[in-house]
Amino acid sequence: MGLLGDRCKTLHVGRHQKHQKWSRHVSPAVTVSSGDVVTFDAIDGSNGQIDKQSDKSVFNSFDFELADPVFGPVFIRDAEPGDVLRIDVLSLEMTDWGWSAIMPGFGLLADEFPDPDLKIWNLRPETGYAVFKDGVHIPLRPFLGIMGVAPAMDGEFSTIPPTDAGGNVDCRDLTVGTSVYLPVFVPGALFSCGDGHAAQGHGEVCGTAIETPLKATLRFNVCKNQPWVTAPHYQTAPETTQIYQIADRGRYTTMGIDSDLLEAAKKAVRYMIQWLVATKGLGRNDAYMLASVAADLQIAELVDVPNFAVTMSLPLNVFV
Amino acid sequence: MGLLGDRCKTLHVGRHQKHQKWSRHVSPAVTVSSGDVVTFDAIDGSNGQIDKQSDKSVFNSFDFELADPVFGPVFIRDAEPGDVLRIDVLSLEMTDWGWSAIMPGFGLLADEFPDPDLKIWNLRPETGYAVFKDGVHIPLRPFLGIMGVAPAMDGEFSTIPPTDAGGNVDCRDLTVGTSVYLPVFVPGALFSCGDGHAAQGHGEVCGTAIETPLKATLRFNVCKNQPWVTAPHYQTAPETTQIYQIADRGRYTTMGIDSDLLEAAKKAVRYMIQWLVATKGLGRNDAYMLASVAADLQIAELVDVPNFAVTMSLPLNVFV
Repeated sequence: MGLLGDRCKTLHVGRHQKHQKWSRHVSPAVTVSSGDVVTFDAIDGSNGQIDKQSDKSVFNSFDFELADPVFGPVFIRDAEPGDVLRIDVLSLEMTDWGWSAIMPGFGLLADEFPDPDLKIWNLRPETGYAVFKDGVHIPLRPFLGIMGVAPAMDGEFSTIPPTDAGGNVDCRDLTVGTSVYLPVFVPGALFSCGDGHAAQGHGEVCGTAIETPLKATLRFNVCKNQPWVTAPHYQTAPETTQIYQIADRGRYTTMGIDSDLLEAAKKAVRYMIQWLVATKGLGRNDAYMLASVAADLQIAELVDVPNFAVTMSLPLNVFV
Repeated sequence: MGLLGDRCKTLHVGRHQKHQKWSRHVSPAVTVSSGDVVTFDAIDGSNGQIDKQSDKSVFNSFDFELADPVFGPVFIRDAEPGDVLRIDVLSLEMTDWGWSAIMPGFGLLADEFPDPDLKIWNLRPETGYAVFKDGVHIPLRPFLGIMGVAPAMDGEFSTIPPTDAGGNVDCRDLTVGTSVYLPVFVPGALFSCGDGHAAQGHGEVCGTAIETPLKATLRFNVCKNQPWVTAPHYQTAPETTQIYQIADRGRYTTMGIDSDLLEAAKKAVRYMIQWLVATKGLGRNDAYMLASVAADLQIAELVDVPNFAVTMSLPLNVFV
């Protein structure tokens, strides 16, 4: 076909096309043009070390070096340093299980939760929610924890921390209907993604979401002349497009106040855990994990010196 | 009347019943019982130093010592240290004007905005929104920036920073329909409030909301045996109870990523300002103030060490 006859194509990145480091030197898995669509078959963030039958003993031999593999990279033709890559999240297909965990040394309150714990979730995407326990339902709101491009700096970088090139931003808003904008630092952008989440609150406070394999369908477009995008931006769709509509019953919120912003956040999480334990009959570990998958950290104010106020807010409709 | 015949009463705290310090030694303005309602006539946070005719020259002689007066205190019978005071926000009546400002030395990006600016708003509560400029409407969502009780420590404390006793938490969620829970530290609790806001985003990043006088109606109840409330908690009503319903058009969001959480927040705000200037034709000062009154700071993740991700998210329906 001639140029005018070209249509947008759909390509596929499979589970074997994974890598563990952000780098401009990873060979492209596929090459696409602006407007093309790519489907990704992404294993979960444990890289297959956890499965439906696992229990917490898995952390006796868990290899963090294998965690958070990413799938790709996708080379996008005509993407040049200084451009912006727009990624439209077209669909995210869940499987029937997921996991959440407390992992020693990991998570916001690592010092207070030294012992490992693991929860295996039965997911039934057709219901729109996951059952945490009797009477506690978590709305499913899948997203890729990791969406990123090759970084500006030469070298090889862990997939764990996010950077201005995106990566492991673990942002619950990157769900179906969202368009993500990433700055392009190398020719072709070299986009990769992974770390499927079935649901998560803002903060991901215990260190994990509902971790799950995801099949993702993403559309890529190169945008020229948007120099104000120097770190990830995104635009969400109206909330009414979400898969699970349940009556709003308000939110219960705890507040952490401190002269250190991180400590204020820790306090808000501690107080939410205390409230869940005191009033909802949850164990501490369950409360921590519930906060991680369903409650949101927000900054109420950071201008009333010297004290900041961070809130953790749980939608009350998780209690059915 | 006998005890069984007592009914809940409504009392009033006027503009003259104000004070400038949190302390257990301030004499009560009124004394109420659990279940009683109090109306407050609260002047704005400038304490009357700014009015409808003001311009930015007001900051040549602005006295910060007079800022953020609070009204009260209300002594609640039977409130004892260890109890929790529940405050139901029954109504908040706005006036027809408000102000927002950039004040030298104040606000999250004080170093980058050294020059004062002042915006006077025409508020028309009956429309449900305030006009920022042609084509930019800010939904009105009034709340008291300050709701607090006398602190645990003896002494006199500024009304500017919030503490575990509440105070200047500047939390946009404390609007009509919300119940606020504050720990009681002294007999009678000694509740005061003030700092009316007609609208504000999470963060109040430039240091001001739409500042305005408010007439507030609050109901007080003493709750026994809630030892898990050691700092402010609150429960919001469903969003559908808000006064201004406008079609959700999604949100535009910028992301700040940094190993320091406060710096990550600063970056998210900077990027939002850059985006507003680049794509919406706003001046930098206007963009900073718009972010403060309408955009929300959230913590996407604070577990992917060493980098945190903070988002600033603006509802796109402010652009009409």
